[in-house]
Amino acid sequence: MLITMTSASPVYSFLGPRGTFTEDALRQVAEAAGAEWKPVSSVVQAIDDVVFGRSYGAVIPIENSIEGGVTATQDALAVADGVRILGEYLVPITFNLYVRPGVSLDDVRVVTTHPVSYPQCRGWLSERLPDHEFIPASSNAAAVASLAATELVDAAIAGPSVLDYYDVDTVATNIGDNTGAVTRFLLIGRGRKLPEPTGRDKTSLIIELPADRSGVLMELLEHFSTRGINLSRLESRPVGDELGRYRFNIDAEGHVRDARVAEALMGIQRFSPRVIFLGSYPRANGNEPSVGSAHTNEAFASSRAWLNKILGDD
Amino acid sequence: MLITMTSASPVYSFLGPRGTFTEDALRQVAEAAGAEWKPVSSVVQAIDDVVFGRSYGAVIPIENSIEGGVTATQDALAVADGVRILGEYLVPITFNLYVRPGVSLDDVRVVTTHPVSYPQCRGWLSERLPDHEFIPASSNAAAVASLAATELVDAAIAGPSVLDYYDVDTVATNIGDNTGAVTRFLLIGRGRKLPEPTGRDKTSLIIELPADRSGVLMELLEHFSTRGINLSRLESRPVGDELGRYRFNIDAEGHVRDARVAEALMGIQRFSPRVIFLGSYPRANGNEPSVGSAHTNEAFASSRAWLNKILGDD
Amino acid sequence: MLITMTSASPVYSFLGPRGTFTEDALRQVAEAAGAEWKPVSSVVQAIDDVVFGRSYGAVIPIENSIEGGVTATQDALAVADGVRILGEYLVPITFNLYVRPGVSLDDVRVVTTHPVSYPQCRGWLSERLPDHEFIPASSNAAAVASLAATELVDAAIAGPSVLDYYDVDTVATNIGDNTGAVTRFLLIGRGRKLPEPTGRDKTSLIIELPADRSGVLMELLEHFSTRGINLSRLESRPVGDELGRYRFNIDAEGHVRDARVAEALMGIQRFSPRVIFLGSYPRANGNEPSVGSAHTNEAFASSRAWLNKILGDD
Amino acid sequence: MLITMTSASPVYSFLGPRGTFTEDALRQVAEAAGAEWKPVSSVVQAIDDVVFGRSYGAVIPIENSIEGGVTATQDALAVADGVRILGEYLVPITFNLYVRPGVSLDDVRVVTTHPVSYPQCRGWLSERLPDHEFIPASSNAAAVASLAATELVDAAIAGPSVLDYYDVDTVATNIGDNTGAVTRFLLIGRGRKLPEPTGRDKTSLIIELPADRSGVLMELLEHFSTRGINLSRLESRPVGDELGRYRFNIDAEGHVRDARVAEALMGIQRFSPRVIFLGSYPRANGNEPSVGSAHTNEAFASSRAWLNKILGDD
Repeated sequence: MLITMTSASPVYSFLGPRGTFTEDALRQVAEAAGAEWKPVSSVVQAIDDVVFGRSYGAVIPIENSIEGGVTATQDALAVADGVRILGEYLVPITFNLYVRPGVSLDDVRVVTTHPVSYPQCRGWLSERLPDHEFIPASSNAAAVASLAATELVDAAIAGPSVLDYYDVDTVATNIGDNTGAVTRFLLIGRGRKLPEPTGRDKTSLIIELPADRSGVLMELLEHFSTRGINLSRLESRPVGDELGRYRFNIDAEGHVRDARVAEALMGIQRFSPRVIFLGSYPRANGNEPSVGSAHTNEAFASSRAWLNKILGDD
Repeated sequence: MLITMTSASPVYSFLGPRGTFTEDALRQVAEAAGAEWKPVSSVVQAIDDVVFGRSYGAVIPIENSIEGGVTATQDALAVADGVRILGEYLVPITFNLYVRPGVSLDDVRVVTTHPVSYPQCRGWLSERLPDHEFIPASSNAAAVASLAATELVDAAIAGPSVLDYYDVDTVATNIGDNTGAVTRFLLIGRGRKLPEPTGRDKTSLIIELPADRSGVLMELLEHFSTRGINLSRLESRPVGDELGRYRFNIDAEGHVRDARVAEALMGIQRFSPRVIFLGSYPRANGNEPSVGSAHTNEAFASSRAWLNKILGDD
Repeated sequence: MLITMTSASPVYSFLGPRGTFTEDALRQVAEAAGAEWKPVSSVVQAIDDVVFGRSYGAVIPIENSIEGGVTATQDALAVADGVRILGEYLVPITFNLYVRPGVSLDDVRVVTTHPVSYPQCRGWLSERLPDHEFIPASSNAAAVASLAATELVDAAIAGPSVLDYYDVDTVATNIGDNTGAVTRFLLIGRGRKLPEPTGRDKTSLIIELPADRSGVLMELLEHFSTRGINLSRLESRPVGDELGRYRFNIDAEGHVRDARVAEALMGIQRFSPRVIFLGSYPRANGNEPSVGSAHTNEAFASSRAWLNKILGDD
Repeated sequence: MLITMTSASPVYSFLGPRGTFTEDALRQVAEAAGAEWKPVSSVVQAIDDVVFGRSYGAVIPIENSIEGGVTATQDALAVADGVRILGEYLVPITFNLYVRPGVSLDDVRVVTTHPVSYPQCRGWLSERLPDHEFIPASSNAAAVASLAATELVDAAIAGPSVLDYYDVDTVATNIGDNTGAVTRFLLIGRGRKLPEPTGRDKTSLIIELPADRSGVLMELLEHFSTRGINLSRLESRPVGDELGRYRFNIDAEGHVRDARVAEALMGIQRFSPRVIFLGSYPRANGNEPSVGSAHTNEAFASSRAWLNKILGDD
């Protein structure tokens, strides 16, 4: 079923509030230009908007180069019905320290930010504000918003986009410990057309292993390696029923319309008790992947022709 | 260097405050009975107490059966100097809802708890308190403590041990979505004797992969499978310098004094640019692991004798 | 091209002369009953009869349970044009000692037989005829034939079928060292219909490895194991251009019309510089092979349907 | 037990008679210069001379680049008690056609040679002597010898060394189909010192697989690949008790005194029901093998030191 666009402008949900890195990612989404952008308060809410047709798309964080996978997103995608990833977008992460207008760095005693952002600024904080106290916020932008709402906090850590929405002063810039930090975001939709292969694609899967026996992860990896497919991400998540049972979130190079990926996926579908196809979509960093000569679409077509000749040799 | 116990009672740090599940784990640590228990406010602080000799041991959470690995602990152990895991302890996770004395469930509008506990009670909350508001707390026990400190919150989610410390009423019990949830905790120390093999041991490692080429994870896994070693945990964490580079947190069955584990570790040390031995220690659930006849200490001794005969056959 | 049977009785070549074990195998070939049987003097000649259409079929030895692969057959099949294996037949190997009528065992000084049969009777000969001399013959039956032709030999070793053709006395029976020895024979043809799958089939291949790098044999074997295919035979043969380059003669369980075998064959065709499909045909010993539930034709059809749903979800 | 050299000159057995390629190989054996050379009529006899102390060494063929492994040698080594390979020697194989003095090529009707040499000259023979008849001989040199003994044969195929022993005319040279053909020979001994590592060594093994289950050959190969060891030869031979059971004759790069080879051998000894160490010795073609940095003796020593630090950290 293709969702028919209504006359009104389509809606894109994003993990809000306004001023977050997620909104920076949404700005990169060409198809969302001019549409309505709806900030929501959780990844689950953003996904639900898509599942129930309230939004035509949603942008959510999936992985940070420092903190690793966003487990809330991974786990929500594992149970979302019919959701597909349509694209990925990279946002460089820079942290600044914001205060109420007129406040100076020397006055800062209580710092607020999202608990994921906080440890990424640990180095700068321990050097420049060794005696500060920390209060967690539900997002970086909410931390900045709280500066106006309560005197309990003195400073907030957030990215530069908050300046579009909040009247605050910047007392320090680039206070993150890792200057090259980057977060990857996903555009998701439902009942949408599979993106066309571009030659630089990625396929996202969630795969449950068949049994807790030794070697079963190697069997899974062989399904990719035998078909010459590189993995760009492999993350384990607990299945949740008992300690020691995992499923794997995997990003594989290539598109499901590539013959090697299609064959690997079918092999894994036969092997795994549960495999979720999350989508095939263009990679954000557009390097051409190296595909061995034995694994091109041409090689697959030629091996099929060879086999047909054997079979039809009657 | 072995740390000499001073005359005073030794100190054990734990992720506080009092009343957390971590304190429940510390209660299981035989060697800590009668010692001083020191609640600290972060995993990093607990580890630092051990690194700098302020505490003789520390208890920290490492993995939850629902939420997965505690990434803060994993990442802190990856950079801690000389810390060793000495034991592991399992605590079943049960969530109750606590209020100020006299308050009833119908009065609850604002709920507080740690952001990791909150989603684990989502089902009960959406059914019984569909219109509640959520305020995050730095720990479950801190959430309970805040009931007395501020009228901004009406109820707190925490485990049963908080009743030892706080004067609150219980208005609902067992409100977690997963009744079998369990959290695994580690006892760590520094300069301590390697625990003796018990036949039911576990070895924890952090291993960086040598290069971002296809198949390198399979090579790592082969180092274990060739020596007949099962893995009970494999979690990927970003190395942190760029997207797509991972290190692996691995728990392998067996003790470093088992010949098969020693050989695998040496093989991995040659293969990996960086491998951290975190410790060999008894497993919390004491199942005897199945070791193939080709991988026992006796088999290793016998193959060594066979080889020596070849070499010495001069 | 299907060869049209001419009106005359079809011809089947076999490695002669009459009275050999190969003729015993030909007796098992149902389709050859009543046809003309043509003894030839070499495996190459039997294959050439098929290649050039002089014979409709041929029976040749491929493997002996004691002596191993018949390398002449393996190497001849590797260069034969368009030849297909249509069936396999097992013949138990029993050796008797034959003499000219009236001669007794005590008179035997010179023994003749084929050089492959001779070492299989070494035990009996060294015990009962320790001082005998050996003269090689081009076949066991030729050895028996020579008893009448020349006084240079006194006794010949051959199987019991020679008694149908030669007037000789049996002075000892079952003189082979291995009582369970068996030889496997192949029925070959050209331009013939692929035998239908029976559920207990075998597929024969000759596969050249792509390069002399470490691990390339493991890559080949993975093509089978990933698709759940057991191998019943794997023999290396030199490619012949230099020491250290090998090709592999492989018998795999299953029929090329089985989805798992078809996929493996296509994978190998893409991987190998040269792969020869020799045929799919019923196994001589009719055990039902165990096919994992992930590798049945039903599982392949179901994974294809799953994939089509993903692809067509437009 | 080291065999004490008696005062008399030591004896070296070789597969005779004089004038064979095996004698050419023996000429390359430095330690045999000036010793007594004893031609014997079979590989088994040569091996028995060594086993029972009648000879100090023996030279036997093991592999031909065209015909593949010499199965008689492989099978004899599998049951020889205490025999060790001490070196290998390569002999280029050239075939000439010899006749009785005065006979011309046009007069040749019956050709004799060893059955292994005969097919290697098939091309030349079918072109120049299309109507010849073939009589097998027990060796090439015996074929030449028979020219003087009987008028039943007209010409013999053998290598150039026969001219040292027989008075014959050469009517054609280089009649082999493969001009680059080469045969590899082994020097064997018993109770001798293991040759010292040279950095360009080879280790020969015979390994029985533990059970006829799928994947067991891959497990064997992993024992080598995990330790970074290339194989230069892998040949299957039937175990002999039933069809479908194989043992493998393997030549691995490296010396048993190399740490990576020692560890692999011990692993295989634990894995296999029966493994025979045939020897470590310098390779005939002295290319330096490439050993990955993770597999050098230095890397093994360094990983052992790393492990000892972990173990001794008491």
